[in-house]
Amino acid sequence: MTLPQVNLPSAVGRPANPAGLPPAEARALFRAGLVTPTSGWSSGYAQANLIIVPKAQAFDVLLFAQRNPKSCPVLGVLDAGETSGPLLAGGDIRTDVPKYVVYQDGRKVDEPTDISNHWRDDLVTFIVGCSFTFESALQDNGIRVAHIDQGVNVPMYRTSVRCEPAGQMAGPLVVSMRPIPASQVADAVRVTSRYPAVHGAPVHVGNPAELGIADLGGRTSATRSGSRTAMCRSSGRAG
Amino acid sequence: MTLPQVNLPSAVGRPANPAGLPPAEARALFRAGLVTPTSGWSSGYAQANLIIVPKAQAFDVLLFAQRNPKSCPVLGVLDAGETSGPLLAGGDIRTDVPKYVVYQDGRKVDEPTDISNHWRDDLVTFIVGCSFTFESALQDNGIRVAHIDQGVNVPMYRTSVRCEPAGQMAGPLVVSMRPIPASQVADAVRVTSRYPAVHGAPVHVGNPAELGIADLGGRTSATRSGSRTAMCRSSGRAG
Repeated sequence: MTLPQVNLPSAVGRPANPAGLPPAEARALFRAGLVTPTSGWSSGYAQANLIIVPKAQAFDVLLFAQRNPKSCPVLGVLDAGETSGPLLAGGDIRTDVPKYVVYQDGRKVDEPTDISNHWRDDLVTFIVGCSFTFESALQDNGIRVAHIDQGVNVPMYRTSVRCEPAGQMAGPLVVSMRPIPASQVADAVRVTSRYPAVHGAPVHVGNPAELGIADLGGRTSATRSGSRTAMCRSSGRAG
Repeated sequence: MTLPQVNLPSAVGRPANPAGLPPAEARALFRAGLVTPTSGWSSGYAQANLIIVPKAQAFDVLLFAQRNPKSCPVLGVLDAGETSGPLLAGGDIRTDVPKYVVYQDGRKVDEPTDISNHWRDDLVTFIVGCSFTFESALQDNGIRVAHIDQGVNVPMYRTSVRCEPAGQMAGPLVVSMRPIPASQVADAVRVTSRYPAVHGAPVHVGNPAELGIADLGGRTSATRSGSRTAMCRSSGRAG
């Protein structure tokens, strides 16, 4: 596969203006080793989460997404063994993401920046819409996004709400959270509702305890590690 | 499984008021042997088409639906071997449809009113939204539905438009057609657009030749036989 020509900075540092970076250039930075949350990057383009599973589990994952479209809005699927596709033209799904989390038998075994040595020809890739996509629209509507202002990843929480299971796939609803002044909540709902393919309007506004979140300081491990990859809003037990 | 108690007419004829029949009673009539198109039945309830395939093909079918959501809006999936589910509470997918078309190796081998003797524990059932659902909404908005007035099945056509393939699944877009006076077309589009889960707004308005339909008299075989079951708007080559 021929990768696109892009100008890399001499050292792989965070670019001065990530919001203005075209996706192919962002992917080239990640391919070269940059590790960073991507909130605020490539404004106006869809961002995605990744789920990669063996073909034997692929039906269950796709059925889980069909039954939980709000949690797992599928933007595209790469067939078994495919490592690129129209959603990442010229890219390589094994290298072009800042960081991956690799699970085996339900246990995390690796957090590489490249999964080439884990790749198998029976792996099916699901590209799932990410709510980072609508953050620039929130900002364009005068709504500040706290974690972008702070330069950190979005807070995420495992809730007590169960997703609809599908075959081997089951798990709690996982949510991201954005603190927004009460006077702007209606605007935030209106803006995000236009983006159903990247989770859309909030599943809840108001009291985190109603979702079983007792402590807004207790984020998921995925957030603490700074990694979002291989993370679905609704985490499931992949085999 | 216990089937619901319903009052069956002494002979299985077409009921006087099919539009007012609750779905469980309609299913009981079909289970008892009534064969009829269901356009105009059970007004206000979703109607569905059926696709049943071996588990080995199920991922390709679901992926085909994900890539062609306008053609194959999946309302629900019954896991391998399941014969009932929440969308047909108390029903049995093997008996409760007026007529089935059974394919083997891509060839039609049977058109039974009951597929119990074809059933296998590895069969996965896809319940796909049917445009009959929005016809009562069209009528409520003063738009006449010609095939209901005439008591026949909706005209359907195989077009020259290709669906997005998925694994083993590929095939042309198949459309239903409703002749509507030009002055009511905008209303018809507005009304049907509210029902994306059952195909929604038309894929085309105007000139059938643009979809490769040379002759509006040349309907698909599925229409000629009066059977809709196992027919997806986008037919695919199931193995």
